[in-house]
Amino acid sequence: MNNQLVRDLGEQGLLQKIQPFCPLGVIGDDGAVIDIKTDYQLVVTTDVLVDRVHFSDRTTSAFDVGWRSAAANLSDLAAMGANPLGITVGLSLPGVTSVAWVEELYQGLHSCLQQFDTPIVGGDITRSDVITVAITAFGEVLPRQVISRSGARTGDVILITGYHGLSRAGLELLLNPQLKEALNPKERALLIKAHQRPQPRLDVIAKLRKIASDAVVTGMDSSDGLGDAIAKICRCSGVGAVIESHSIPRCPTLNKLSSDCPTEQWILDGGEDFELVLCLASQLAQELLSDLGEGAAIIGHIRDESRIRINGTQEIRERDISDLSAGFQHFSI
Amino acid sequence: MNNQLVRDLGEQGLLQKIQPFCPLGVIGDDGAVIDIKTDYQLVVTTDVLVDRVHFSDRTTSAFDVGWRSAAANLSDLAAMGANPLGITVGLSLPGVTSVAWVEELYQGLHSCLQQFDTPIVGGDITRSDVITVAITAFGEVLPRQVISRSGARTGDVILITGYHGLSRAGLELLLNPQLKEALNPKERALLIKAHQRPQPRLDVIAKLRKIASDAVVTGMDSSDGLGDAIAKICRCSGVGAVIESHSIPRCPTLNKLSSDCPTEQWILDGGEDFELVLCLASQLAQELLSDLGEGAAIIGHIRDESRIRINGTQEIRERDISDLSAGFQHFSI
Repeated sequence: MNNQLVRDLGEQGLLQKIQPFCPLGVIGDDGAVIDIKTDYQLVVTTDVLVDRVHFSDRTTSAFDVGWRSAAANLSDLAAMGANPLGITVGLSLPGVTSVAWVEELYQGLHSCLQQFDTPIVGGDITRSDVITVAITAFGEVLPRQVISRSGARTGDVILITGYHGLSRAGLELLLNPQLKEALNPKERALLIKAHQRPQPRLDVIAKLRKIASDAVVTGMDSSDGLGDAIAKICRCSGVGAVIESHSIPRCPTLNKLSSDCPTEQWILDGGEDFELVLCLASQLAQELLSDLGEGAAIIGHIRDESRIRINGTQEIRERDISDLSAGFQHFSI
Repeated sequence: MNNQLVRDLGEQGLLQKIQPFCPLGVIGDDGAVIDIKTDYQLVVTTDVLVDRVHFSDRTTSAFDVGWRSAAANLSDLAAMGANPLGITVGLSLPGVTSVAWVEELYQGLHSCLQQFDTPIVGGDITRSDVITVAITAFGEVLPRQVISRSGARTGDVILITGYHGLSRAGLELLLNPQLKEALNPKERALLIKAHQRPQPRLDVIAKLRKIASDAVVTGMDSSDGLGDAIAKICRCSGVGAVIESHSIPRCPTLNKLSSDCPTEQWILDGGEDFELVLCLASQLAQELLSDLGEGAAIIGHIRDESRIRINGTQEIRERDISDLSAGFQHFSI
């Protein structure tokens, strides 16, 4: 039974396996019907994950592929300031995929989503030579509470909502098991969890709006790296930034790998930490910060001049915003 | 320049090529923000199209892949009674894909969408060994105007909005060019267009709501075949149907192929005609019918007994709804 393949089951059989992870009635109509609150706007975001590009059997179980797919999309909603309403799942996969793999994928999706009462409201399953998971998430937001990348203003401080570099370190641990020796089991688990089960920071949005319902906040998530997020916000807002390198919190567990690994680089460019990078008034940032856990910090401020300066402990690096990484180049390999 | 490959351009370069087909500002934030009218509900639908499963270079240009992807999703919105608000495009493709192919794909998407003032509001592009196009479309509908599959009642008549079998015939013409000889150029073009550039019947929804704003209508589209649609509506509604075979309009052009091809089967099971199959009160159906073009007809009625009878010219076929095709089985080959 556990060795059953997708091609043995057919599409209808597979849909029956997936049904338990979706609200009743979702599977059956041409589309899903969803309520949206009066005066709210709809926010939509899409991510595509491809086997052997974004995940691999070596580092990611089917459950974790599901979890990460859901987390990445919910993180994009958080980055827009929105509350999630639902997701759709477009799944293509070879007929020789095991049915158990598909069930675990949906378990992972469902487990991440249910933390935020977010249903899978629709989808499509089809045959392909390559497993591909295409998620579209949608949420609702009051127009004045939209968080965009283009509103950062001189005087705003830059707040990050947690540690960076942990997801990249977790990946490294999975790829190079000998690194484990520097860490105790709890520390290993922390880094691997950061990679396999990242948490979208929807909690930050709820806290922010409790403190300041109408405050204008600019920002995005750090899914493509902290450095990338700062560069993109500056470019979209037509401003620059000063980053105090010593203000970026270092996770003690990550520090234990720093003699063997480029942990400083992972903090800036590792990506997939799914924290939020927010630009907002200093006082509001302080208030929000007192509500957030360790790893959250104010790491710099926005300035008029369109250059990003990183004040390090020994050196100062300064670059024009147009020179900075345009983010992960999916086709550059 | 025309031989430029996706991998030469990188993700950012590719996004610049796509920008002309999206509203200003769409590419840049973590998600798209969209207005939805007060009191309306959101409708969401997803389709995944995979190279060599749903399309092939032999029968479908990049433009047509785009057109058909958009049309299939807009047809699902029409099938729900919704007006389109936008789509997202999740595209995965090999680095050796030509940039021209990607541009043509977006031209096709855009050309189909702009007939209904529907924007591409977001997406994701990533690397894969197989070209995969995952579209999510969303629309808005007043709660009382939702068209579901589960409300068909005894006494409703069954209305189809156009000819069936033409898309399947168009595909056959592309695969077997010798069939062309039975047809003149205009007739060939008609069938091939039915296959390559199907029209979502959003116009029918507009006409229906002009005639009867609040009428309860049940139905779906015939994307998986006319027979499949009737069977699904009956199953979801817990009813049966009587179909008058002679009432199903035969397109004169399709008739010219009937000595060489199983055209009767194509009409019932060909699929991808993207017409609507609606169950509604007889008087409303008559009124709507007078507003629709040739190929539209009332072809039967709903009955209590949960069996579907097809009254043919020579024989009567009758089957239990549970026996009827469960639709195209993507994994059955």
